[in-house]
Parts: sequence; C-alpha cells; structure tokens
Amino acid sequence: MYDKKTSSQHEKPTIRVGLIGHQFMGLAHSNAYRNAGIWYDLPCTIDMTAVCAKDTPENLQTFADKFGWRSIETDYQKLCARPDIDLVSVATPGFLHKPMVLEAAKNRKHVLCEKPLANTLADAVEMAEAAERAGVRHCCGYSYRSTPSQALARQLVDEGRIGRIYHVHARYAQDWIVDPNFAMVWRFDKKLAGSGSLGDICAHSIDATRFITGLEFVEIVGHLQTMVPERPLKANEPKGEKGQVTVDDVAQFLCTFDNGATGCFEATRLATGRKNNNCIEINGEKGSLYWDFEDQNYLYFYDRTAPAHQQGFARINATENVHPYSGGPWPVGHGIGYADCFVIEVVNFLTAIVEKKEYHPDFHDGVAVQKVLDAVERSAQKKMWITI
Amino acid sequence: MYDKKTSSQHEKPTIRVGLIGHQFMGLAHSNAYRNAGIWYDLPCTIDMTAVCAKDTPENLQTFADKFGWRSIETDYQKLCARPDIDLVSVATPGFLHKPMVLEAAKNRKHVLCEKPLANTLADAVEMAEAAERAGVRHCCGYSYRSTPSQALARQLVDEGRIGRIYHVHARYAQDWIVDPNFAMVWRFDKKLAGSGSLGDICAHSIDATRFITGLEFVEIVGHLQTMVPERPLKANEPKGEKGQVTVDDVAQFLCTFDNGATGCFEATRLATGRKNNNCIEINGEKGSLYWDFEDQNYLYFYDRTAPAHQQGFARINATENVHPYSGGPWPVGHGIGYADCFVIEVVNFLTAIVEKKEYHPDFHDGVAVQKVLDAVERSAQKKMWITI
Amino acid sequence: MYDKKTSSQHEKPTIRVGLIGHQFMGLAHSNAYRNAGIWYDLPCTIDMTAVCAKDTPENLQTFADKFGWRSIETDYQKLCARPDIDLVSVATPGFLHKPMVLEAAKNRKHVLCEKPLANTLADAVEMAEAAERAGVRHCCGYSYRSTPSQALARQLVDEGRIGRIYHVHARYAQDWIVDPNFAMVWRFDKKLAGSGSLGDICAHSIDATRFITGLEFVEIVGHLQTMVPERPLKANEPKGEKGQVTVDDVAQFLCTFDNGATGCFEATRLATGRKNNNCIEINGEKGSLYWDFEDQNYLYFYDRTAPAHQQGFARINATENVHPYSGGPWPVGHGIGYADCFVIEVVNFLTAIVEKKEYHPDFHDGVAVQKVLDAVERSAQKKMWITI
Amino acid sequence: MYDKKTSSQHEKPTIRVGLIGHQFMGLAHSNAYRNAGIWYDLPCTIDMTAVCAKDTPENLQTFADKFGWRSIETDYQKLCARPDIDLVSVATPGFLHKPMVLEAAKNRKHVLCEKPLANTLADAVEMAEAAERAGVRHCCGYSYRSTPSQALARQLVDEGRIGRIYHVHARYAQDWIVDPNFAMVWRFDKKLAGSGSLGDICAHSIDATRFITGLEFVEIVGHLQTMVPERPLKANEPKGEKGQVTVDDVAQFLCTFDNGATGCFEATRLATGRKNNNCIEINGEKGSLYWDFEDQNYLYFYDRTAPAHQQGFARINATENVHPYSGGPWPVGHGIGYADCFVIEVVNFLTAIVEKKEYHPDFHDGVAVQKVLDAVERSAQKKMWITI
Repeated sequence: MYDKKTSSQHEKPTIRVGLIGHQFMGLAHSNAYRNAGIWYDLPCTIDMTAVCAKDTPENLQTFADKFGWRSIETDYQKLCARPDIDLVSVATPGFLHKPMVLEAAKNRKHVLCEKPLANTLADAVEMAEAAERAGVRHCCGYSYRSTPSQALARQLVDEGRIGRIYHVHARYAQDWIVDPNFAMVWRFDKKLAGSGSLGDICAHSIDATRFITGLEFVEIVGHLQTMVPERPLKANEPKGEKGQVTVDDVAQFLCTFDNGATGCFEATRLATGRKNNNCIEINGEKGSLYWDFEDQNYLYFYDRTAPAHQQGFARINATENVHPYSGGPWPVGHGIGYADCFVIEVVNFLTAIVEKKEYHPDFHDGVAVQKVLDAVERSAQKKMWITI
Repeated sequence: MYDKKTSSQHEKPTIRVGLIGHQFMGLAHSNAYRNAGIWYDLPCTIDMTAVCAKDTPENLQTFADKFGWRSIETDYQKLCARPDIDLVSVATPGFLHKPMVLEAAKNRKHVLCEKPLANTLADAVEMAEAAERAGVRHCCGYSYRSTPSQALARQLVDEGRIGRIYHVHARYAQDWIVDPNFAMVWRFDKKLAGSGSLGDICAHSIDATRFITGLEFVEIVGHLQTMVPERPLKANEPKGEKGQVTVDDVAQFLCTFDNGATGCFEATRLATGRKNNNCIEINGEKGSLYWDFEDQNYLYFYDRTAPAHQQGFARINATENVHPYSGGPWPVGHGIGYADCFVIEVVNFLTAIVEKKEYHPDFHDGVAVQKVLDAVERSAQKKMWITI
Repeated sequence: MYDKKTSSQHEKPTIRVGLIGHQFMGLAHSNAYRNAGIWYDLPCTIDMTAVCAKDTPENLQTFADKFGWRSIETDYQKLCARPDIDLVSVATPGFLHKPMVLEAAKNRKHVLCEKPLANTLADAVEMAEAAERAGVRHCCGYSYRSTPSQALARQLVDEGRIGRIYHVHARYAQDWIVDPNFAMVWRFDKKLAGSGSLGDICAHSIDATRFITGLEFVEIVGHLQTMVPERPLKANEPKGEKGQVTVDDVAQFLCTFDNGATGCFEATRLATGRKNNNCIEINGEKGSLYWDFEDQNYLYFYDRTAPAHQQGFARINATENVHPYSGGPWPVGHGIGYADCFVIEVVNFLTAIVEKKEYHPDFHDGVAVQKVLDAVERSAQKKMWITI
Repeated sequence: MYDKKTSSQHEKPTIRVGLIGHQFMGLAHSNAYRNAGIWYDLPCTIDMTAVCAKDTPENLQTFADKFGWRSIETDYQKLCARPDIDLVSVATPGFLHKPMVLEAAKNRKHVLCEKPLANTLADAVEMAEAAERAGVRHCCGYSYRSTPSQALARQLVDEGRIGRIYHVHARYAQDWIVDPNFAMVWRFDKKLAGSGSLGDICAHSIDATRFITGLEFVEIVGHLQTMVPERPLKANEPKGEKGQVTVDDVAQFLCTFDNGATGCFEATRLATGRKNNNCIEINGEKGSLYWDFEDQNYLYFYDRTAPAHQQGFARINATENVHPYSGGPWPVGHGIGYADCFVIEVVNFLTAIVEKKEYHPDFHDGVAVQKVLDAVERSAQKKMWITI
C-alpha cells in the first residue's frame, strides 16, 4: 500500500495519510502525524496528504494549513478513493466509523480508526472482517496503550512480576457534565454516540485490562444509568427547550476473567473533581500495579518479592530510557502530555505497516472490547449476568 | 442501668463494664474503656468491672491485670447476670454475638456489640428486637464512624456542601491472605465467621455509606468469590493437610440508592500492597469527598462552589479543634491512630447512655447493614438483582 | 535504682516513676507510662508513683486520678527526694530542665528529660555530666526516633541500602502562629523557651539526622528571624497591650557533615497549611529516604539497586511485624498515632534501665543536638559560618 | 523587525526565526516554533527560516528537515546577519550566549536566549544593555513560567490570596549524575557551563520566586559543593582517564527578601530518585502555594480564608479553560508535557513582539536572576553573607 516509488534502497518509504475528522480527535491525530517523525526514528516518512471533514472549505483549509495537510476533501468517499493515499485515519464520532472504515477497506487503504470501533458489536465485527479481507493493516485507537507508563504495566506483567492475577479494579471518572445545565451535544445522543460513558471512557478501561493483563472477560453483570435525563438544547439558554439524553451518564459492571480473577469497573461523567481519572489497579499474587492517567508519567508497582520490610508501592517515573518508548522523547523527569500517546501510537502503527509486523490494538482488539460493551448493555437491559 | 447509688448530685455516675472477648477486638475495647475518660470529658466514670473469655484463668488474669479489669469470668452467662455490671461489650467472633447479646438484654444490660451485628439477617433482627424490648442502649461497633475525618465527611454532607449525591464508590482492600499458604483461621469458616471479606470489611463500607450520605440501599447485584479455596490447616505445615475455605475472599456489588444514586463496592483480602485500604468516594453535584483509612487523619474534599480556578481536592488534616471530636486529643497535626476511634466510640456511647440520648450506630443500623450483606449473598447465589 | 524487693526470681522488677509537668508533654508522658506495659512485653512493671506540677492540689489530683498517678507533689525537689521513686520524667518548659535534672541526678534517679535538653549548651553539658556522675540512665525525649517508620529509615541506612550519603534536606513546618493576633505564650519568651522554632522543632530535625544517618555536623551557617515581633498579651484582646516576641519564628541553616555531605534545614511556625510537617529527606548513592510525620505510618524509600525500570519511591506502610517495634501494636495497616511514639520511647528506655543496656537518645545525644542549636544561634548572630 | 511586506491589513505578519543550537534546547525550541501556531491563536505566522549549529551540513540538514527549518547555517554570525530573519533564538551552552546575543542585537534582531542568560553577571548586564540599545524585544528562556500551573501560582498571589509572604522554600533536585562513573560532559566544565546545578537548575527556582511572588532578593548566604570532583573522560571507560569537575554538584543558599520574608534554596544533581523535582513552596499569611514540576499539571493551594474545618491543600488540576493559557490546548484533565511550556513561551513572546507589548521574563529578569547567582557564588567563596 505504502508508496514504493522512491527507488533508492536507502530511502525510506513514504506513508501518505488521509485524515477524516477535524474536531478533538482530528487535532490529536493531526498533531501525531505532524510530529511523529521528529521524536522517534520512523522507518518511513509521513506525507500529510489530505484532511477531510464536513465543514466549509475555508475552515477546513485553515485547519489544513495549521497542521500541514497538503489538501482538503469534504467527501470521505472521495478521500478513500484517492490513489495518493495509503492510510486513512478515522477520527469522527462513532456512528460514522463503519461506513468510513468500509470505504477505506474497499479501497485497500490501511486504516486507523478511533475507539470505540463502532456503535454496535455487529458493526465492529463487520469492520474487522472488511479490513482483514482487504489485507490492510488496522489500528483501533486505544491510545492510552501508547503511554510509556501503561506500557510498563504490561511489561511488568509479561515479566512475571505480578504473578497470578486476582483482581482488576478500574474506574474512569470525569466531571464535565456534572452541571445539569450543561447543554446537549452529540455525545448524549445514542444514535450518534452509541452509548455514553460506556463506549466513550469505560471502553478504555476494558482495553487497558486486556492489554496489561492479557486476560479475557468471561461473565459480566452491568448497570447503566442516566442521572440527568434532560438537558438544555442550547448552552446559553439553560431555561430553554430541553433535549433527551439517550445515553448513560454512568456505566458499571462486575465480571470474571478466564483465569478466575474478578473485575470491577465504573465509568462516569458525574464524578465532581475527577477530571480524567482513568485509573486501573491490578492485584496479583506477587505484586500489584496502579495506573492513573491524571498522573500519566507514573506507574505504581508493589513488589511482594522485595525484602518484606521495604515493600511499598513504588512510584515509577516512567520517563527514562529504560522504559517503553524511551519514556517519551525528553530526558528523565521531563514528562510527556496527552498528545504524546497519539504520537507514539502513530509511530508504532506506521512501523508495523512498513515492517509488515503484527500490530496491536488492531480491529480484533477493538471487537474484543466491543463484545464487552455489548454484554454490559444487554446485561444492564435484562438485569442479569451474561456470558461473553 | 448505670449505678445511681452515688448519691451526690455533683458526682458523676459510674458505668460498670463487662467485656466478652480478649483477642484483637478485646484489645481495642479494653484500651478504649481504659483511656476514654482521659482524653474526653466523660459524663461518667468507667469501672472496668470484669473481662470474660474462654481461656485459662491464668491467661485471662494476665490480660485483666494488663488493662485493669477488676475481675474475670469464663462464662458469659455469668458475666451477663452479674448485678454489678451495667454494660456488656461483646468483642467475639460473629457466631457468638447473638447468644451473648440476647443474654445481656435478658439481664437488661446496655450492650455494645462488634460488627457485623450477626452472621445472618434474622439473627441481627432478633438481637435488635431483644435490645429494644429490654429498653437498653445498644451500639453496633462500626468504629470508623468515630474517626474525626469520617465524621467530618458526614458533617460536610449535612451542611449541604456535596449537594445531590450521584455516586458512592467504595473499596476495602487488604492483602493479609495473598499467600496461598496462609493457614486456616476461624475467619475462613462460614459457620464461625458468617462470611469472609463481605461481613468483615465490606460491612464497614456499607455502614460508612449510610453514615456519611444518609442514603438507603435499594437494589443490589452482588458477587462473591473464593479464589484460594483450600489452605493449610497449620501455619507451619504449608504442605500439610488442607482445610476448606467456606467464605468469600472477595465481595463485590453494584447498587442503587433511594435518591437514584449509584453505588459500586468491592472488598477483598487479596489486594497485594493494600494493607487496610478502607476507602470511599462520594460524588455530588456540588462537591466530592474521598476518605481512606490508610490516611486516617485526612479527608479529601472537592468544593465545586469555590472559584473555578482554585478548585481541587483539598487534603484536610482533620486534627484541629474545629473538627469532629476536636480532631482527636492532641494539637493539630499530631495525628491519631487506629485505637483512637474505639476510644471516641466509647465516649459517644457512654455519653448517650448517661444523657439518655439517641445513639448511632445502634443495632438498627447494624440490621440495616445486615440487610445489604444478606442481599449481596442472595444475589451472588442466585446471580440476579435483588431489591432490599 | 529500680526496686528489687520483689523477691521471686520470676517476678519482674518494678520501676517507680515520678513525673514533673502536666501540660502537653505531661499528658504524653502520662499516657506512655499508663499504657506501655499493655502493648509491649516490658521486662518490668511500671508504678505511676507520683506526678508533680505547679497547680492547685485539686487540679493536680484530678489529673493524677485520670491517669492513675498514685500521689501528687507540688515541689519537684520533694519529688526527686522521694525514696519510692526510681525514675524522674521531666516534662516541663526548657528553662526548668536543668534544675530538675540536676535534682534528680543528685538523688540518683534515672531521668527522662524532654527535648531540647536545655536552653543553652552549657546547661546541657552540665546536665549530661551530672547524670553520668550519678550513674543513672538518662533519656532525652526525642520521641520521633521511636516512630517505627523513622526507626526503619535508620535500619535501612544501617543495612547499607542508602550508601554514601550526599544530602540531608529537612523541614519542620507548622502554622499555629500564622495569625499575627495569636497571643503571647511562654514559648515566645526567650527566657523560658530558650529559642523559638529552633529549639522547639528544628531540634527534632537535627536529632533525626544524627539518628538516621549517623553523621555528625561540622560547619554551619544559620539564620533566625522573628517575623511577628509583637503579639497581644491576651488571646481575647487582639487590640490590647502587646508583648515582645523574643524568639525566632523561623530558623534555617546550611551545613556540612563529617562525611562531606551537605545539609539544608528549615523550621518555622509560619508555614500556612503545614500542621506538623516534620520531614526529612536523605539522598545517598544507592538510595534515598523520605519521611514526614504528617504521614507518620509511612517511610518512602528509593532503591537505586532495583532493576532500573521499576525504580521509584516505595511508600512503605511501616506497620508490619517485620518493621521496628513490630510497626506498632496493631495488625498491619491499622496505623499508630502521635501518642504511640512516647509509648515506645518509654518501653525502650525502661528496658534499657532494667537490662542495663546502652540507651539512645541519651543526654549525650541531647548535648550533640544542643551543640548544633548553639552554633546556629551564634552563626545567626554573627552572620558567619561556624565550625562545631 | 517582523515582516510587514504582506500588504493586506487582514493578513497576519510573519516572524522569521533563526535558531542557534540543535541539542536538547534546540529540540525544545524547534518543537515550539513548529507547533505554537497550531495550539494558540497567534497574531503572526511563524517562518522557520534557518537553523544554525556546529555540525556537518548533512546532520544539520537532517535536523532541519525533521522540524521544517527551511535552511541551515553553520556560522552564527552569518545567521544573525541574514536580512530574512527577524528573531534569533539562542539555544546553546551558556558560554556562547553573549557573543550570539550581541551579534543578534547588532543586527537588530529580536532575541530569545536560553537561561541562565550568561555565565557571569557582567556578561548578562552587557547583553541586556545591547538588546535594549538595539530596541529589540528580548526573552530569557525561563520557560517554567509558561506552565499553566506555575502561572496560576502567580495569579493567586496577584489576586491577594496568599497575603503577606513569610517564606519561600525551593528545591530543584535531580539525580542524573549520582553514579560517580557518569562521564564528563560540557556541563561539568566551568568555562563552558559557568556553574553546575546553580546556573542550570537553581536559576529556575530563583526566577520562579521572582515571577510568582514579585519579591526581590536582598541578602544571601550561599554554599556550593562538588561531591564527585573527578569523573571518567569517556562514558564507556569508567576506569579510564579522569577529568576534573569544576562546577558545583549542589548549590544552596539562605536569603531574605525585600518584604522581610525568608528564603531557603537548594539545587542538586545528586538526589537519588528525584528526577526533575523542581519544586517551590510559598507560605503567606492568608494562604500557601506548592508547585512541583514532576507533577506539572497541578498547583497546590491552601486557602486560610476558607471555612476552618474544610481547609486543606487543594490539588488544582490546572488544565481548565479558566486557568492561564487555557490550561494547555486539550480538554480538562488531558495534561500537557514538558515541551508545551516552550510552545506557550513562544506564543507569549511572539505576541509581545507583534503587539509591541511588554514581555517577561526579558533580559532584565535574566540579569536579576544572574545577580542572585553571582551573589551565591561570591558568598560561597568568601563564606559570608552578601547584600545584593
């Protein structure tokens, strides 16, 4: 897929990228493609070929100029069909993922799709199959995996430092809609967003669990609740017309894993004071891990094999060269920020494309998360345990 | 009940105490009765009349001498029948609570009973009714309520600083049985202990929720799991004969409250590195609270009504005179320890007895917790949601 | 000194204690003598023979009754002369330490004297010489040494886990006099208190340094400042007559140690929000330690010899049996409080008396601290470096 | 200076930048110029005109291509003389700052110079005078000021939330040279680096103090020490030839400020476990602030004017729109990293250039820091207090 026309053996291939979406995730992707080649030794060069979004050409061109996208498109089908594009990056709301990914696959483009992969499990499966059939590389944008501190958690599990895992305990708590007068946005509409805190943030906890522990979910009982069912249609008219919130404000579930461990998960947008409190604790026979994105440069590790009198949760500043992804591009202690995990994600995915290596999280990982989201929804609806 | 024979109006009445139990909780109670009168201005004097336990008289006398118990008994019925005792303090394993409390009530003694009140809901109800019928004061030993920092949480809720409550999120995590060779003790036997982490520690989280928020539990789905089902019978023979663990290692439940809030609870003894991580977070529309017993002198409070740019979780060192129970007996910043919440519990209960005032947590509070424990057990067994 | 009249070889000797002082430190000592025998296996029994203070006999008797002191005295010379006393515990303001200690020594009583040992170096030396000549055991009340977490710091240094020490960085910060209208108390009068934050709290940092590191101070440059030089004479009359504060509000010094390490110390009572922030950090070639009394059950240890990718400050909950003094009397995670370090201090000192073993911190340690305090004062006055 | 040739009034002017230096700081500057226009609404466009460094043209071109510098120079005088450059950004070691800044000023270019401004006070003064005479805008690169959390500290002081300041207590601790076999680099050579931890990191604490508090330093006593005076010349030959370390490993000083407050400062590269522990605490009559770069998205604020029972250090996640610089470019809780403060610095400086507004920290601020560094050095040498 990627351009081989650069004849010299010594030259790096170029990956030509088309981005769809220019809101929050569009910014994150744009920054990542713009800067990935600076901080890590990429096996390719990145061409920021085109950005596509539903907007006026003027606005879109302004966006493109800022980030260095060389052209614009307003029709994603056109973008996907362009022969000068190798990789389509989908950074749109969930309900748009499927048509866009299918279109990319149809055109045999590699594809990076934001999470959750789709609004339904069936859609996600269809997308994964399409990408697989097309023979392209696929990435599902669970970007927190690319944070050095979270990757270090995975590494310590792999090294056997945690031993048999007993528990996963995760909470992803935000507070941006605590105010009942916070107005309607697309994220509150089930048709567009699929779900609320479940797909938006709990999905990250589910993926982090699979990534760090390697465990798979077995049985689940879930609960979804909408605590502020109506919100003003317009931000500046709190007393004005109301819209219906059709997604969950809070998602919770208990579960078991294939090794017999238990899980406890909660995601909410109503936890006053918690800004992006994406945290996960893993307790094993030999050690424990604790990770919290509000403290993103750190991993907490308890080593039960250390001399007994010196055991304690070690706060590891995961910014050293010995840490995954060199702990980020800066010297030790000079932490990274939110944007950097997207940079690392792009580095990893492009490397996998060029080196034709396996990549995770791919769409199958995306589907695996979707199975859990789907089970939580069904369980919450039927008020019963469900086997995945 | 308490002795009024001291005729002078100026003299304080004496409360004559009989303690049953001389293990972990017996120590905590003994210390509390011995020292309560020193640190707080009690409206009575305490007479440490007798201690009762199943042990050799020699051992028991040694215990009594250490703490200042004036006599010993080895039969709790005798103790309860003694006319020179006003208050019976029950500090034995759960399966013994009922007969002892009933005996105390029969003899019209005030009674302080350790938590959980009983091993079954039916027993707990019977005990509460007996105490009520006997017209005595009763206290269920949810001692963490007496920690100034937890009492401050309740106060802030009462003051309206949290507003409408959205979530309760609690975890009580310990790690003392992480080693699969940790040998059998009575706490692993359902007949003696009733349950495992559920009644032992999750009960505290349930009581803390009721205490701090004033909310009542409505619907519950629970899960209990025994992850290490066999343990050596003898501590020094890890390869020797095994016994069956008949209680849960981990207890979890999701729930709703009478105001529509959601709850998420987990209690475990297998969380490596967590020593006595009894923590609870309460998120409301106006603010949030976070309390963790491993950090017992502190309460974390997020005030969403503060100027926006200075909002953050405030770490309140609850050791000042302005805090509940004067923040403990020492000057500000000179923190209290585990034993002190029992001291304050005894101060509060004795004061209620003397002043004939309402006391909480009483046996009705104990029953309320028991209803939740019972629901969790039934829910876990039937794998369904249960309405309390 | 201690009573050997109890004839049986199997019986423990009794140490008969006389306490002088019944304010803040008098409370701490009383509690310690009252309860030491309960929590630790003492090689003696404690007889709380007499308490002595300048107060009405009624008030003093009330105090004695509360704690169990068997008699009262209002003249310390009488107390020291009593033949039924083995140990005199001095818990009075600094200017009274010398006459009381000398009197105790004259009467050949063991003596525990609160810190700082004296208001001047000369006095301290005289006291140490007197105690030494009398052949009695002496303890200078640097009680924080008895906190299990601080003792663990010492242990890790002893075990070589820190290696060559590069730096000591200590701050003891309180805020109880931040309000300029906080009224005059004896602690602000140089004649009574000797100094302000220097002797009161910086002395603890100096002792902790010597205790944990084993290093001795060599050169010092100090600075003392009184930022609120006048305060109301009466607490309820902020606009009323003022008194002169003749001691420092803040004390600071830089120093070098006998191994070439550097030190940086600050003590203040004007650090708004810091309640009893007695903290010390020690950086060595192999590891670092951080201890803060506001977090008294914990020690932070960074192990540079651990695998590189898992290094971090471990937060050690020093409440386990493997920790010094069994980590306190309760099970792991059930923390101790301020009062408990006095209990442990008394246990250690009485054990040293009975077993005729070396005890630290003794008066020589007290003198060593005093040398530093004296050097800081002279250095601050002369505005120059001083060699100790 | 900046290009006005773009005729339309509606068009933004362009600032054409020449960067000198392509090591650590060169990377930070390059990233900032590359991305400043993306995240903030700049009043100009940035043209990355040329990068200059002593390197092979190949290496330099590779660097230029990565970041988007349009041309390269290997002679800084040529760079400074180029008519197509408006702003020279100096990101070289300290001993090169003066000639480069003077050259830039001679050519009437705006100039951003890394900190410390120079290796000596005299040089710094000369540079500030030259820039002033040239009439150009000047920025001294104390970039931590641009961190939203540190800027928030300044804002709270400005708002009067801290009141009269009593103390500044700062420590900047790193551990990158704890290993005695860490080999010689230019930073250990006084001729090149000017000083060690003093100018490299303590300078940041000094600037942060001036920035946040607005106080000026009055009297100082300082201490510098080189604890590892020899290091291997080559990293891979620890037993090989040694070089002399001619700068301090640790710098400390005590001081007073113009309002009577006290200061205590330490900077070290030998604090095992401290990675980039750039922290400062400010205690005032009404409140306190605590800031630590290892926790860069947070500011701790204690508000003594809040209701007494709810006072505590609030951990403010300074990533909201209400915070300085909108708390960074991302939604609340999605923290920024080290690189972002350079981005904000460039945004602020370019804005000041275009809008012809006052800018801080400028070279006068750089000189003010230098006066303190100079006083510390002289004080350390003479072992006496020095008035600035």
